[in-house]
Amino acid sequence: MVNSGKGLENVYIDQSSICYIDGFGGKLYYRGYSIEELAEMSSFEEVTFLLWYGELPTKKELEEFSKELARSRKLPEELLDLLYRIPKTAHPMGALRTAVSFLGNLNGEPSATPEDVFRKGISVTAKIPVIVATLYRIKNGLDPIEPSTKLSHAANFLYMLHGEKPPKEWEKAMDVALILYAEHEINASTLTVMTVGSTLSDYYSAIVAGIGALKGPLHGGAVEGAIRQFMEIGSPEKVEEWFFNALKEKRRIMGAGHRVYKTYDPRAKVFKKYARLLGDKTLYEIAERLERLVLEHLGKKGVSINVDYWSGIVFHAMGIPIELYTTIFAMGRIAGWTAHLAEYISHNRLIRPRLQYVGEIGKKYVPVEMR
Amino acid sequence: MVNSGKGLENVYIDQSSICYIDGFGGKLYYRGYSIEELAEMSSFEEVTFLLWYGELPTKKELEEFSKELARSRKLPEELLDLLYRIPKTAHPMGALRTAVSFLGNLNGEPSATPEDVFRKGISVTAKIPVIVATLYRIKNGLDPIEPSTKLSHAANFLYMLHGEKPPKEWEKAMDVALILYAEHEINASTLTVMTVGSTLSDYYSAIVAGIGALKGPLHGGAVEGAIRQFMEIGSPEKVEEWFFNALKEKRRIMGAGHRVYKTYDPRAKVFKKYARLLGDKTLYEIAERLERLVLEHLGKKGVSINVDYWSGIVFHAMGIPIELYTTIFAMGRIAGWTAHLAEYISHNRLIRPRLQYVGEIGKKYVPVEMR
Repeated sequence: MVNSGKGLENVYIDQSSICYIDGFGGKLYYRGYSIEELAEMSSFEEVTFLLWYGELPTKKELEEFSKELARSRKLPEELLDLLYRIPKTAHPMGALRTAVSFLGNLNGEPSATPEDVFRKGISVTAKIPVIVATLYRIKNGLDPIEPSTKLSHAANFLYMLHGEKPPKEWEKAMDVALILYAEHEINASTLTVMTVGSTLSDYYSAIVAGIGALKGPLHGGAVEGAIRQFMEIGSPEKVEEWFFNALKEKRRIMGAGHRVYKTYDPRAKVFKKYARLLGDKTLYEIAERLERLVLEHLGKKGVSINVDYWSGIVFHAMGIPIELYTTIFAMGRIAGWTAHLAEYISHNRLIRPRLQYVGEIGKKYVPVEMR
Repeated sequence: MVNSGKGLENVYIDQSSICYIDGFGGKLYYRGYSIEELAEMSSFEEVTFLLWYGELPTKKELEEFSKELARSRKLPEELLDLLYRIPKTAHPMGALRTAVSFLGNLNGEPSATPEDVFRKGISVTAKIPVIVATLYRIKNGLDPIEPSTKLSHAANFLYMLHGEKPPKEWEKAMDVALILYAEHEINASTLTVMTVGSTLSDYYSAIVAGIGALKGPLHGGAVEGAIRQFMEIGSPEKVEEWFFNALKEKRRIMGAGHRVYKTYDPRAKVFKKYARLLGDKTLYEIAERLERLVLEHLGKKGVSINVDYWSGIVFHAMGIPIELYTTIFAMGRIAGWTAHLAEYISHNRLIRPRLQYVGEIGKKYVPVEMR
């Protein structure tokens, strides 16, 4: 028996050829390709193919894969009906969790195999943005929009949300966001997906579990916290006071610090570029001033800017309500979850650690009347 | 960085005072009390209190806790409505996953705190058997039965399933089953629940994830496999041939072998007693002959009889359809999931291991037209 660090910090639980993070150098690679190149030149559809099958697709493969994704967007009637019945007060991530679980009930749930993971992966990857946009419109008393089969994955989401085709720069920013969110090795949600998969449970059970983990504010939920914090600060002059108060009160600064990155998260650098291009000027200035203080005062402790810091400003610029930001994370991360699930179960071993018992043993049961 | 064994075998990921398993001695203790004493003398309600709060309840505490559980049985109308809409072809564990997720949508899902975990734990523990029995009756064209507030947790489930109060010996056997299933340290589903909880996600997200993990045939799903295997063998004379064929074809023997127990699972001993008392004579004899062969031929390799081996014969004797057996496991295990979630988040650290990258780095992106 060995003891791991708390939270399994610094423990390699398996080998993988999907993703490499250099947490000290601030580098990230999907299947060997740097995230900067992929964000600039690729698309979410292509990156998903790359993550799943290990190689960039040929032109023909990419066309077929993209078409298959577009064809799979349409929601079954029973699911559409359910979306109307989910209480409007539900958090969109909770609603998404229920919707994907219900999709499993409709589609049969035998034990996952790698082939089955990719087949269902296409369907669920295609439908998550459709579910999110449809829930949003129902909640706001708007008629849901039928998915388009002509638009890209990123553009279709914005189209279904707003009811009109997005400008090119929004489509690109959303596509980049999905690429940046697509994969990040074995974070908490990916561990969750792999653990469920390791029991040979079904694809939907694994993905539903991952959505529940991503929802947490120490994981995907942080993206909602970061922008709320910039809004709470309110103006660039107030950043300094807010920051030192936060330090004094030991409050967490949302979007700062990461278990693996001890330097500036490479994804945050890309998001920052789009925040500068598209974002609200005041929010951007608040965030930039706060960033300077974080790097100056916390940088030497290894606390830097993470993926959640700048992304909210980009989504805000596209008119997306804050409570949807974690669902955009899920729209991207489904690609990585699916890749890891297929990889893990192809050489499966049940994930079953131990807990070290620190209580008494052999206490004598006393019937309740004699207590 | 350290490497753990595959599947986190033999790694203590944290300390805990909830459960002690002696895998070589074949002993199991909840909060220091042996499983044999608890199964004989306690009740599921009392064991749940013990697991959550660390001590056996006083008479008054037990009465209040049991009353609170009974009061929480009634399902909200919206959930009842949903249960009619889940396709009848869904696996009951998949349907339960959706139902508990929807319950979260109705009930608000802020980040979990230990107090909140116990409050919601009572509600969900009370409702899982009600959901399972209601789904079963709807599926079979029967009117759902209203929960009773007078019956014990175990008796109410059987009452709602069959439409009549169960005989005393059935109530006892079901109560014992729930006690035996209530807790088992950090198996795959409990790790899943804790990982989701470690992101500070909500109670429902964690439990929904646990249900998805328990569904797998390498975890709770095995209970359905074991009895199907006895039925497939069909008669005691065929056991020997079946066993040696299974060995030759390297087929898994359901209900045999366990990651932690290298000897007879103490829970299986208790289940065996009830299988002998209540079970179908032929199935019992098949299972007993097969058990002898397993112990004789595989025992020296550390493969013995686990919790899933005998339990199905007990449930079968009470007229419960096989596809519900894993949901009974969930009815019990919700107690342990809830206990571990509250314990872990009271000293929380995000569960975030690493994967060791074994692929290339720095591949050059080539635009699709040039591939």
